Amino acid sequence: MVRRLSDLGEFGLIRRIDRLVRGSAGGEVALGIGDDAALLRLRPGEDLVASCDALVEGVHFRWSGQAARSVGRRALLVNLSDLAAMGARPLGCLLALCAPPSLPLPRADGLLRGLAAEARRRDCPLVGGNVAKDRHTTLTLTALGAVARGRALRRGRARSGDRLFVTGTLGAAALARARSEREGRPLRLLPPCRLEAGRALGRMRARVSCIDLSDGLVSDLGHLLEGTGLGADVDTARLPRSGGFERACRRLGLDSAVLLTRGGEDYELLFSLPPGAPGASTLGRRLGVRVTEIGRVSRRPGLRGLPRGSGWRHF
Amino acid sequence: MVRRLSDLGEFGLIRRIDRLVRGSAGGEVALGIGDDAALLRLRPGEDLVASCDALVEGVHFRWSGQAARSVGRRALLVNLSDLAAMGARPLGCLLALCAPPSLPLPRADGLLRGLAAEARRRDCPLVGGNVAKDRHTTLTLTALGAVARGRALRRGRARSGDRLFVTGTLGAAALARARSEREGRPLRLLPPCRLEAGRALGRMRARVSCIDLSDGLVSDLGHLLEGTGLGADVDTARLPRSGGFERACRRLGLDSAVLLTRGGEDYELLFSLPPGAPGASTLGRRLGVRVTEIGRVSRRPGLRGLPRGSGWRHF
Repeated sequence: MVRRLSDLGEFGLIRRIDRLVRGSAGGEVALGIGDDAALLRLRPGEDLVASCDALVEGVHFRWSGQAARSVGRRALLVNLSDLAAMGARPLGCLLALCAPPSLPLPRADGLLRGLAAEARRRDCPLVGGNVAKDRHTTLTLTALGAVARGRALRRGRARSGDRLFVTGTLGAAALARARSEREGRPLRLLPPCRLEAGRALGRMRARVSCIDLSDGLVSDLGHLLEGTGLGADVDTARLPRSGGFERACRRLGLDSAVLLTRGGEDYELLFSLPPGAPGASTLGRRLGVRVTEIGRVSRRPGLRGLPRGSGWRHF
Repeated sequence: MVRRLSDLGEFGLIRRIDRLVRGSAGGEVALGIGDDAALLRLRPGEDLVASCDALVEGVHFRWSGQAARSVGRRALLVNLSDLAAMGARPLGCLLALCAPPSLPLPRADGLLRGLAAEARRRDCPLVGGNVAKDRHTTLTLTALGAVARGRALRRGRARSGDRLFVTGTLGAAALARARSEREGRPLRLLPPCRLEAGRALGRMRARVSCIDLSDGLVSDLGHLLEGTGLGADVDTARLPRSGGFERACRRLGLDSAVLLTRGGEDYELLFSLPPGAPGASTLGRRLGVRVTEIGRVSRRPGLRGLPRGSGWRHF
């Protein structure tokens, strides 16, 4: 018989988490799981960066369509993507796990193993958290990071004439979702999490403005410029896509331009740099990832060159 | 007609949160709500303290039995209690709010107003978070704090012969729960949150071992001593109770000793100090709160002097 969370009890579950994630702890964790709170050390001159995000069963993932490990990995990666967009390095993370007592242990273990594997890979140890009973499973991750004072990559710093860039390719997550829905393929959405690229942008000491693309280019470009009164001209034809993307869209009868600009969940970095910034290929070498110039910030409010449609709605 | 979350949409809700909590921000928040992540500053020589906790509708609160404002306040206070138990000062907090689109706005506003009021009072501004759709409401709070390096109040540092103390009084939350269940009284559980007392303990520079009482004295005394191989002798007769507590228990036919030791949710501090420590009344003056000596740490494993029964089970 498959064992369930209720067979462990609260402290049994905490011990299990502790065991499954062991070895994910790095040198800056003064105190991890097992006390009232975690204790972390920043380096002199660093500021703390903190972000949280929830993955809700039935809203952001389904047991039937996704491997538990990939859900666990994703829970951490979407948070680390926010640290990346601030130019921060990860310090550690907290997991608030809400789950029904009937949750089969292999699923719980899968979540935790996926999370632990990604925590090790990204040098972001699980240092604490909370477990609570719920009717379904929700993973709320808090990512904690550090950034040299004054070097955080903020939104809203663009000026008219600034050039707009994105890392990686767009539309892949939206295409995977569409495929999964239409063809019943298992969904495996793992944000690329551009931590190194974000830190490299911070080291440039230029007037960078940056955001990670979680809701789609249209929506997030709006957020990047929020409060500036500025607009942007984007060249949709230049948006970076992976090989086979257009063909797959055609085969499924999907409008590739909509997927590229409104699909969401790309988790690439969208950033602006002053007109005199290096070109995309030089930036790509510095950031260690493909970089594409996609348009310019303009004095004229509004976003131009983007197809109409609707983005991802959370409510 | 009462408006609902779905009338706001995600970004409308975020703007509303921003507006409702405005003014809760302190001087150490370099960047609050509205970017990819929050940015906070620690003082030189401080370590970061981080803790998170979830309040789940139907498990930790019910709309029918509790005012929304008190749920919002409680969500922050249970987290700050963990900072208190580490001797930390609050820096700021993150809220991951999962809620159904049908949630009436007055309830959402009540949660947020309660949280904001407590954030101001405790100097722990809401600096960021996340909103997500869910079938019911869950508030996951992450509290971030700071403590001078080497001064964090840890568990597991007690030695044989150490004296055991608690702040405040015990059993009140368990009594309130019992009353609410039996007499239909609205439940208003607001943790006392001993931040000042925790920091005063840290300043003593003694070998303190400390935990906050969330699961009940029996359970948490076990946690305080975990890994030490030690036990404790407790004098249940000396456990501090508020005026009228015994009478109320008798009237309801409740075993007051069980409520005092296993009721849970007291959120007072339980701590040990070496044999030569000041007496309870001197400690009380230093900590700014009633302090009671309740027993001693012993070489003999196990807890003695405590009634049998069962504590709060999360699963």
